[in-house]
Amino acid sequence: MSGTKSRYEPLAVAAISLAFAMTGCSPSVGGGADTLDQLFSGELEVIDLTHALSATMSYWPSPTGNPFRHDTLRAHADGSPAMAAYFTPEHHGTHLDAPVHSAEGQLSVDLLTPDDLFGPAAVIDISTQSRADQDYRVTLADVEAWELEHGPIPSGAIVLLYTGWADKYTDPVAYANLDDEGRLRFPGFSVEVAELLVNEREIRGIGIDNLSIDYGLSRDYAVHGIVNGAGKFQLENVANLGRVPAAGAYLIVAPIKIEGGSGGQVRIFAVLPSSS
Amino acid sequence: MSGTKSRYEPLAVAAISLAFAMTGCSPSVGGGADTLDQLFSGELEVIDLTHALSATMSYWPSPTGNPFRHDTLRAHADGSPAMAAYFTPEHHGTHLDAPVHSAEGQLSVDLLTPDDLFGPAAVIDISTQSRADQDYRVTLADVEAWELEHGPIPSGAIVLLYTGWADKYTDPVAYANLDDEGRLRFPGFSVEVAELLVNEREIRGIGIDNLSIDYGLSRDYAVHGIVNGAGKFQLENVANLGRVPAAGAYLIVAPIKIEGGSGGQVRIFAVLPSSS
Repeated sequence: MSGTKSRYEPLAVAAISLAFAMTGCSPSVGGGADTLDQLFSGELEVIDLTHALSATMSYWPSPTGNPFRHDTLRAHADGSPAMAAYFTPEHHGTHLDAPVHSAEGQLSVDLLTPDDLFGPAAVIDISTQSRADQDYRVTLADVEAWELEHGPIPSGAIVLLYTGWADKYTDPVAYANLDDEGRLRFPGFSVEVAELLVNEREIRGIGIDNLSIDYGLSRDYAVHGIVNGAGKFQLENVANLGRVPAAGAYLIVAPIKIEGGSGGQVRIFAVLPSSS
Repeated sequence: MSGTKSRYEPLAVAAISLAFAMTGCSPSVGGGADTLDQLFSGELEVIDLTHALSATMSYWPSPTGNPFRHDTLRAHADGSPAMAAYFTPEHHGTHLDAPVHSAEGQLSVDLLTPDDLFGPAAVIDISTQSRADQDYRVTLADVEAWELEHGPIPSGAIVLLYTGWADKYTDPVAYANLDDEGRLRFPGFSVEVAELLVNEREIRGIGIDNLSIDYGLSRDYAVHGIVNGAGKFQLENVANLGRVPAAGAYLIVAPIKIEGGSGGQVRIFAVLPSSS
């Protein structure tokens, strides 16, 4: 798949870079000059992009329902758990797909290092397109429009699609959006954009605010194969993307460290620069 | 418990602060001037303080053995999991005890916010004392010695005890260290230091590199009650503390977000300033 030629014009990127150079503006730097002291003293806004894990949250449709179980082992007098155990699929709720999920020989979740998991965020807003077309897939033109406004996708970025789907998260029926033929219907990444990002940009991973980076009607999960096949991770069921600026924020991606895991629940924090 | 008078001398802290003020030195600031751009471009060292979760790792002794289960749902040709599910107690492996764990009415793990979870790290090294005495509990004098060298425990700190126990993590028998009478034997926090930290310092939480913040022989888990009772969290089975400087590092604490959970597996990252 890595040999596929992208239809995206490299010239357009060069032109965008030149335009920014001429204006003396470096839009992708954003709040990079903010300090650790600001971040760790609570001066900067940090947004939690994680939905809580529960038996009532949205899930990939299954005849047996939501598989998450939370069993209290010892309770306080008010019934709240003092100790509990739980059962969950790795790929449930807000989670990370490790590269090995869709590509044999790639890294499992425990082998991803901080260098893989910290990076600038690029949020592409396709919520308007997704309202008009539930099967929408992000286009090369959408990426080009983002880059015209914000500069090239930053090196090491985690590229997130904001479809608006998270608003339906508390309603599993609306979120999965099965049609009369039992097919999932929600927007996603396109093969073209996935190939652009892994072949012509330097990304750490991608993410989306619904059940899958591949759109609902996909049968071959081609985007999974392209991204994981390139050794990158994906994030699914990401929360609160509408609150993250298109450019300038930073992501901390903190998956549960399961030895040999194909993925797992992930805590995702977006750090907003003071200028946003 | 919050009414208990600490035996620690407030005067000593004032003297320490004065000493640092007189030298013009502000030791607790450390690498606070490092920028987000440095952190998110991979320029700063980030240490993963998390042990991988597995069925062979150390665990709180139980006649039924290590309770972690990892079931492959779909495998690649080489046997590596493409999809899996798992079962685990919340308080297993490197994990966070939410305040509700030991104190009814306090916050569950999903309600801790980034403001609770990001802060400066203070690492108190009691590895020498712990080698000499497996039942060692950190003393007020140990904290005083730390503050004489590094200044007062920073506001919002997460205070970590480095006992050296993590070296035994791959050997569950040595790590639990049951004696002939079946009692756990390992070092921990003392009631005096726990009370000092929650009553006379402003901490976010505490942590340790062995099975419990209360030393092995504890039967009343008094430190749990003091820390959780004050609305603070604790971290247990923390890894790699020997690589974190005593002062100047920052912690990102990222627990799995289980709705109503009394705690859960946590990914912990220590950000090292460029000056360390």
